[in-house]
Amino acid sequence: MPSWYAIEGSLATPKGFRGAAVASGIKKAKGALDLALIVCDVPGASAAGVFTTNRAAAAPVLLCRENLKKNRGRARAIIANAGNANACTGRAGLLVAEQTAKAVAELLGLQPHEVFVSSTGVIGTPLNVDLILKQLPTLKESLSVEKAADVPRAMMTTDSFPKTIVLRSKINAKTVTLAGVAKGAGMIHPNMATMLSYITTDAAVAPAALQKMLRAAVDASFNRITVDGDTSTNDSVIALASGLSGAAIKAGTPAAKKFQQGLTEVCQALAKMIVKDGEGASKIARIDVRGARSASDAERVARAVANSPLVKTALCGSDPNWGRIVCAAGYSGAAIDASKVDVRVNGLYLCRRGVHAGFDEAAAIKELDQKEIAIRIDLHQGKADAWVWTCDFTHEYIRINATRS
Amino acid sequence: MPSWYAIEGSLATPKGFRGAAVASGIKKAKGALDLALIVCDVPGASAAGVFTTNRAAAAPVLLCRENLKKNRGRARAIIANAGNANACTGRAGLLVAEQTAKAVAELLGLQPHEVFVSSTGVIGTPLNVDLILKQLPTLKESLSVEKAADVPRAMMTTDSFPKTIVLRSKINAKTVTLAGVAKGAGMIHPNMATMLSYITTDAAVAPAALQKMLRAAVDASFNRITVDGDTSTNDSVIALASGLSGAAIKAGTPAAKKFQQGLTEVCQALAKMIVKDGEGASKIARIDVRGARSASDAERVARAVANSPLVKTALCGSDPNWGRIVCAAGYSGAAIDASKVDVRVNGLYLCRRGVHAGFDEAAAIKELDQKEIAIRIDLHQGKADAWVWTCDFTHEYIRINATRS
Repeated sequence: MPSWYAIEGSLATPKGFRGAAVASGIKKAKGALDLALIVCDVPGASAAGVFTTNRAAAAPVLLCRENLKKNRGRARAIIANAGNANACTGRAGLLVAEQTAKAVAELLGLQPHEVFVSSTGVIGTPLNVDLILKQLPTLKESLSVEKAADVPRAMMTTDSFPKTIVLRSKINAKTVTLAGVAKGAGMIHPNMATMLSYITTDAAVAPAALQKMLRAAVDASFNRITVDGDTSTNDSVIALASGLSGAAIKAGTPAAKKFQQGLTEVCQALAKMIVKDGEGASKIARIDVRGARSASDAERVARAVANSPLVKTALCGSDPNWGRIVCAAGYSGAAIDASKVDVRVNGLYLCRRGVHAGFDEAAAIKELDQKEIAIRIDLHQGKADAWVWTCDFTHEYIRINATRS
Repeated sequence: MPSWYAIEGSLATPKGFRGAAVASGIKKAKGALDLALIVCDVPGASAAGVFTTNRAAAAPVLLCRENLKKNRGRARAIIANAGNANACTGRAGLLVAEQTAKAVAELLGLQPHEVFVSSTGVIGTPLNVDLILKQLPTLKESLSVEKAADVPRAMMTTDSFPKTIVLRSKINAKTVTLAGVAKGAGMIHPNMATMLSYITTDAAVAPAALQKMLRAAVDASFNRITVDGDTSTNDSVIALASGLSGAAIKAGTPAAKKFQQGLTEVCQALAKMIVKDGEGASKIARIDVRGARSASDAERVARAVANSPLVKTALCGSDPNWGRIVCAAGYSGAAIDASKVDVRVNGLYLCRRGVHAGFDEAAAIKELDQKEIAIRIDLHQGKADAWVWTCDFTHEYIRINATRS
């Protein structure tokens, strides 16, 4: 089967979707887009969702989980706001999320449980539901294929650019399109869905299969990125499938394999954009761990290295301080033998069998000055591998996060 | 029994000790003290040690562990250098540590296993043993009670001030002195002994009891501090007891309780100095977690909050962003109910039962502007408590660690 290729577009490039965004005033900046609506026009569209594991999950996340149970994977709309996360807002916050879902449902002639609600922004400040309700008629009027392009901008908080990817391919001779948008930046961590992302497709895929494939795609993408080790209260990935391409995706078939591949590519492309846009990040690095005794050991090492502030500041300063990498591997909890560890940056050995590889410092600095860096760690303990993406820690990260909003 | 009180002094204030330090050239800065020797003049002095759990433990740590087994808690000297950690240096590094111990033993007429070797500084660069060997005669000549005051300065790397504490009290009518020095700054993490610290005392305490009491003191002090979440390859705490005070410390007696208290106070005072001197730190915070379901849950929450870059940057910017605290508690893995959490800063409620406590922003900022901050988190889930000390994340931390050495 032909592979997936990227095209220009939006969440409404797959057939059966419309979108719109408005400035509701939830964001302090005047006129900033902060409220988005995505609608699938096909009754009974498939839906799937993966949500944060944070025990202090925000009100909209609690509601989405509940709705996903009630609707059994059949949903039609996503309403999303930026500027206020509606997290740590107690009962009142839950009421706001419920009121929002109900109002959107009435507006579109749906059941409230067919609507997903999503929020991002400041934690612990009450979200004024009136700002949302007031804009719903305008949002509905603006709903179109064209206006769907505004959605990713309305999701942004400290993001510096909107994040969209659209992929297209043929499955069983039908043209299938997959689109995704995301917002990320701070509080990104691999323990979970790790930010907001919405995915649309016109493939015909049943809810259970969509849920399973979305979970797999998230595990291989959003769960492998880390900006600061913090796992947010609001992380959500939601997928809607209209079925209008006519391409039926049945579990266990080559079509399913192909669709899974596209879905994972969409998630990986968005995840990488999020790391690139990590608060204050100036470069991104893929931490590749090979030869671990077990998959969990491989992952422990990858995450310890990716989250180490000392490694992340060394990346920032292009410092070939491989000792910090071995040190992080050492405290990761994985079974390692320091005298067997190799560390390479973009193929250049910094450390061989636990000691200085005799590299040329200037050459190493040149590699570390790249905007995309590949760090490979060979443990020589077994056959398990793992990888994560991370970004550097810069002055800008401190500036953004030490400034009162 | 009377309590412990602080006095001026050094590692040689307890009876039976001498010390000295020299500039050996291991540190790049000309004339900078970087090599120290501490000697107990009493044959058969008791010794105890607690070392890093990092799997990539440095050569001197490996040797110290081995020596502590061989000498069965009877040792006489510590030789310490700064400027090079002798970590990730393979077989050659182990040889350097062994040669150092052997040379010091010959110099002082001891067995090599009666000598502890300690290194701190750059990881992964070979340590030139000749620089050490060349200075040993001078070091021996300089050994004195007065010169022992130079030891903490010779241990410093990115530390901005030397760290010493001397406590005195009476145990069974005998005057007992406890002294401690430490170096810390970067790579400080609670998973273990967490830096270099040497403790001397003239109490008469058997090796097994000293080891047990040192472990307890370390658990309540060095293991409760965090600067950047990284656990170093070289962390070591070593204690020597001369017995010359004549105060016998027998396990299970009031004297032992009293001695434990002093030992813990010494470690806590040093640990607090280390956090205060955390790389780039401008303030320190005690994170106090109450009402957790279990001790491990309490600790998980305390450490997640203390290590969260978002909490640490909020501390830096005096931002009363309690949502980041609840968020970190939420992803800590502990059983929490966000709707029950209270958060206070210096007694001022920021969050009550999971929602904004209606505090005055200016008042909260004033509290966060203090140099020492108490953050209290009540989970209302059970009766377990835990606390850790942390410091803020500043521009200075990035500057120090993103600069190539």
